[in-house]
Amino acid sequence: MIQTKLIPRTAEAIEPPMLIKNLLAQSLKYEPHREIIYRDLFRMNYVEFNRRVRQLANVLTERGIGPGDTVAVFDWDSHRYLECFFGVTSLGAVLHTVNVRLSSAQILYTMNHAQDKAVLIHEDFLPILNAVRGQLTTVDEFILLSDKVYTGEEPAIPAGFAGEYEHLLKSASDVYAFPDFDEDTWATTFYTTGTTGNPKGVYFSHRQLFMHTMGLMTYLCGYQAVPFSSVQDVYMPITPMFHVHAWGFPFLATMLSTKQIYPGRYEPEMLLKLLMKEGVTISHCVPTILNMLVNSPVAKQVDLSRWKVIIGGSALTKGLAKAALDLGIQVYQGYGMSETAPVMSITHLNDLERQLPIDQQVDLRTRAGRIAPFIEMRLMDDNGNFVPHDGHSIGEVVARGPWLTQGYYEDPERGSELWKGGWLHTGDVASLTPDNWLQIADRTKDVIKTGGEWVSSLDIEDLLSQVEGVAEAAVVGFPDERWGERPHALIVQKPDAGLTVAGIKASLQAKIDQGHLNKWYLPDQIVFVPEIPKTSVGKIDKKRIRSEMKTLILG
Amino acid sequence: MIQTKLIPRTAEAIEPPMLIKNLLAQSLKYEPHREIIYRDLFRMNYVEFNRRVRQLANVLTERGIGPGDTVAVFDWDSHRYLECFFGVTSLGAVLHTVNVRLSSAQILYTMNHAQDKAVLIHEDFLPILNAVRGQLTTVDEFILLSDKVYTGEEPAIPAGFAGEYEHLLKSASDVYAFPDFDEDTWATTFYTTGTTGNPKGVYFSHRQLFMHTMGLMTYLCGYQAVPFSSVQDVYMPITPMFHVHAWGFPFLATMLSTKQIYPGRYEPEMLLKLLMKEGVTISHCVPTILNMLVNSPVAKQVDLSRWKVIIGGSALTKGLAKAALDLGIQVYQGYGMSETAPVMSITHLNDLERQLPIDQQVDLRTRAGRIAPFIEMRLMDDNGNFVPHDGHSIGEVVARGPWLTQGYYEDPERGSELWKGGWLHTGDVASLTPDNWLQIADRTKDVIKTGGEWVSSLDIEDLLSQVEGVAEAAVVGFPDERWGERPHALIVQKPDAGLTVAGIKASLQAKIDQGHLNKWYLPDQIVFVPEIPKTSVGKIDKKRIRSEMKTLILG
Repeated sequence: MIQTKLIPRTAEAIEPPMLIKNLLAQSLKYEPHREIIYRDLFRMNYVEFNRRVRQLANVLTERGIGPGDTVAVFDWDSHRYLECFFGVTSLGAVLHTVNVRLSSAQILYTMNHAQDKAVLIHEDFLPILNAVRGQLTTVDEFILLSDKVYTGEEPAIPAGFAGEYEHLLKSASDVYAFPDFDEDTWATTFYTTGTTGNPKGVYFSHRQLFMHTMGLMTYLCGYQAVPFSSVQDVYMPITPMFHVHAWGFPFLATMLSTKQIYPGRYEPEMLLKLLMKEGVTISHCVPTILNMLVNSPVAKQVDLSRWKVIIGGSALTKGLAKAALDLGIQVYQGYGMSETAPVMSITHLNDLERQLPIDQQVDLRTRAGRIAPFIEMRLMDDNGNFVPHDGHSIGEVVARGPWLTQGYYEDPERGSELWKGGWLHTGDVASLTPDNWLQIADRTKDVIKTGGEWVSSLDIEDLLSQVEGVAEAAVVGFPDERWGERPHALIVQKPDAGLTVAGIKASLQAKIDQGHLNKWYLPDQIVFVPEIPKTSVGKIDKKRIRSEMKTLILG
Repeated sequence: MIQTKLIPRTAEAIEPPMLIKNLLAQSLKYEPHREIIYRDLFRMNYVEFNRRVRQLANVLTERGIGPGDTVAVFDWDSHRYLECFFGVTSLGAVLHTVNVRLSSAQILYTMNHAQDKAVLIHEDFLPILNAVRGQLTTVDEFILLSDKVYTGEEPAIPAGFAGEYEHLLKSASDVYAFPDFDEDTWATTFYTTGTTGNPKGVYFSHRQLFMHTMGLMTYLCGYQAVPFSSVQDVYMPITPMFHVHAWGFPFLATMLSTKQIYPGRYEPEMLLKLLMKEGVTISHCVPTILNMLVNSPVAKQVDLSRWKVIIGGSALTKGLAKAALDLGIQVYQGYGMSETAPVMSITHLNDLERQLPIDQQVDLRTRAGRIAPFIEMRLMDDNGNFVPHDGHSIGEVVARGPWLTQGYYEDPERGSELWKGGWLHTGDVASLTPDNWLQIADRTKDVIKTGGEWVSSLDIEDLLSQVEGVAEAAVVGFPDERWGERPHALIVQKPDAGLTVAGIKASLQAKIDQGHLNKWYLPDQIVFVPEIPKTSVGKIDKKRIRSEMKTLILG
């Protein structure tokens, strides 16, 4: 960084740090009468919400939780979780949003690694806790979260627990002056799992979450990429709050005192009921959830035309995009990852693109979006050189921006790998158009490097799936002496399709001859298999395929 | 500030500073086809604007202007000025926006005090420069700004000038990589005058102007206080760009690649022409300009119902607010000062207030607005104690926030006074409602302190002006042994009104008896005068009145 002249400061002058409490403070300024709603169980306005956040801070402070301590939360999406987003962080403590989908062993690892001091846990997750409780090395406070209190039942308090959340809040003072502190203070942490090694802890500061909120607002409210207005919109997350703070939307929605709906555990009937009853207009979710809702028999009987949905987690297919658009749902797509807090791109049709016919809009809406405000994104090849943003060249997505994790907690080696050369490496391979549309091509580890070119295994799979009689295809790169790597394909035939390797190759060759694709896309080997190996979450298991391929090809 | 745990950082990891160049970068991302227009002389899109900003940076760099140097600009509101807002600051230099309304002597003082190294000056202001040029101690570069180049004329280049702006830009490279530097880097400076002493230099960092933009966006785009959408809105400033960066709106409008119109010198015909032709929807100005436009014969022939105007500088009267609303103009009011970058409050009718009848809306719209996002505002009495926000208690407005000047340049004494006790003192006396509506009552120096109560001289003037036969009234505080101070009034009668002191007092006493006002509002002395002393800019000269009053009363 170059040397410049800094502003002089008067001793008495104050320039406040950017803290999460400053986002919270806005929620009381103009529209404190708007509501935050939890399922069909509980509703309150922002005055009460702020009071409860201060009560939570008192409950924690009284139990010895202070600045620098870590508080783990296990909960479905709830108003309580939202209170933790603000209360835990604003007292200077660190919020550990526990990924309840990890295995007990992984959860145990993350809790000890993060040095959790207190745990707030919904009774649905007690079995997970009970399985590991004896091996926790740092926790000394437990608080129960229960929905029973809203229906008049008394939840059973497990041994060693301080009590139940609502009861503790009720007996706590609602006076708490959140202090000022360094804006680089650690605010949140959570863990991400790769194919190898222990879960990695990412972390974000107050400043980073403040800036993420500003970036999101610039995109949604300023540019109206996904038009968001605190006056007209009603927000309901359908991506778990433990998953990268529900994409940071709760921070923005709370700052703007938007009406917010927290749906608890995701159950289709409850989601649709809340959508209708509370007039939800904006959500985000994975394709699976959207697919489930779109195909629900109720979906056709209700008006979903005010609903905007941002899809993330995995790619939005054209089929699903069209099905949703046909129901009047406005679908968008976002891209990001745990390491990026998460938003790096969201669909944004500009003035000109909004006038395109719906088919061309679908094409744009199924891309990974356009680079978000304040995010600098590039494509990089294996040698660390930048690849042009020409809409077809591909390279690894690398980024800089004000809200990217600055490493992995106590894992400097993988942190340095993530930030190699001063750019955060996403591990995703993509193309970028000159006007900033991002198209994800592959995961870095699955891209096939052949003769100096990068070929997307997903693109070849897409081509093969279009061949008549192909039920499913998987493509992996396989070492090749001359070209470095060459594509090899596994194919599952439809019953009685009677496909041959020669037939499939001929069909691809025809496309090559017509100039539709480059010759290096043609797989060297095509093997018919009864089924494609999948991971536990249903993704194609390319690691296993590569290893099995070795046996298949080399014997 | 309390001690907390900061996020750890990987050596290679980068978290970029918040710089003005980051605002500029967004303007190319999504809507670069939108236009920036200068009068009826010049138009360009954001691609060209960005190119010109880089060319300007090259012109300055080639002429030896670098980080830490100060560049003074004398211009009407123009695209060139906007280019300086971004180009001068982004190369690390300081932009001095010269207040062309100061006297030559004051301008000379500010230029030497700010250590201006280069001057960009519109030919209209050459007489000012020529008057002081020989006494400038630090300037060694002059660049001419001229509108003639857009009409094909060749402007005359004064001796010692490097050339004319457009010509210099044309021959400069459009490649310039704006560097990263500390976000506390000094970005802009300008001078404010008081009743005594030399002009005071305020200054703002990149971070402060970035945060001001975020605050403005939160209010305008997020809360839709004054609904602003880069898709539908067209922005034209009618407050000079040398006056607190045209309230910071050009930074927001540019970041959002809004269509922007720069009107040059303010001429009613040109303003109305641009308003209509370019479809301007949002502006800000002082009441005088709005009054002029509202009363222009053209105003009744055109549709102004899409036009939103934020009034600042002095108070919006109910009469003017109604006249504007009757024409369909949506009027709002803002409050701030040079020291506060400037926005501290803007009108914001919330969900509930929007449903009020128009008369009650006028009442709200003529207040000074509601406290802006991220601004913390309090009322303080003479002893440094906070005054309640109850809608009627008054105290001096003090504030903290992310964009307040951290002092006066090379004037530590007045800087400490400004920031006494860690709060920026505005010198304005006001009341605040519990829901954050600000009502300015008086200037601190004019408020009357009587028997421990603060009484607004403006309130008494308002009461007196409502007495039948009163043409004008001025009220000042006058020392009183028992009460500290007591109000004294000067009154100008309407011709043949035949008012008496006793009659006026009786009329006020009736209001007191009805409980409409407190008895301490009753002036001790009422003196009839043929005219009220005024300052050169037409404000009531209370300083002179106080001194004349001494003669009148004490003999």
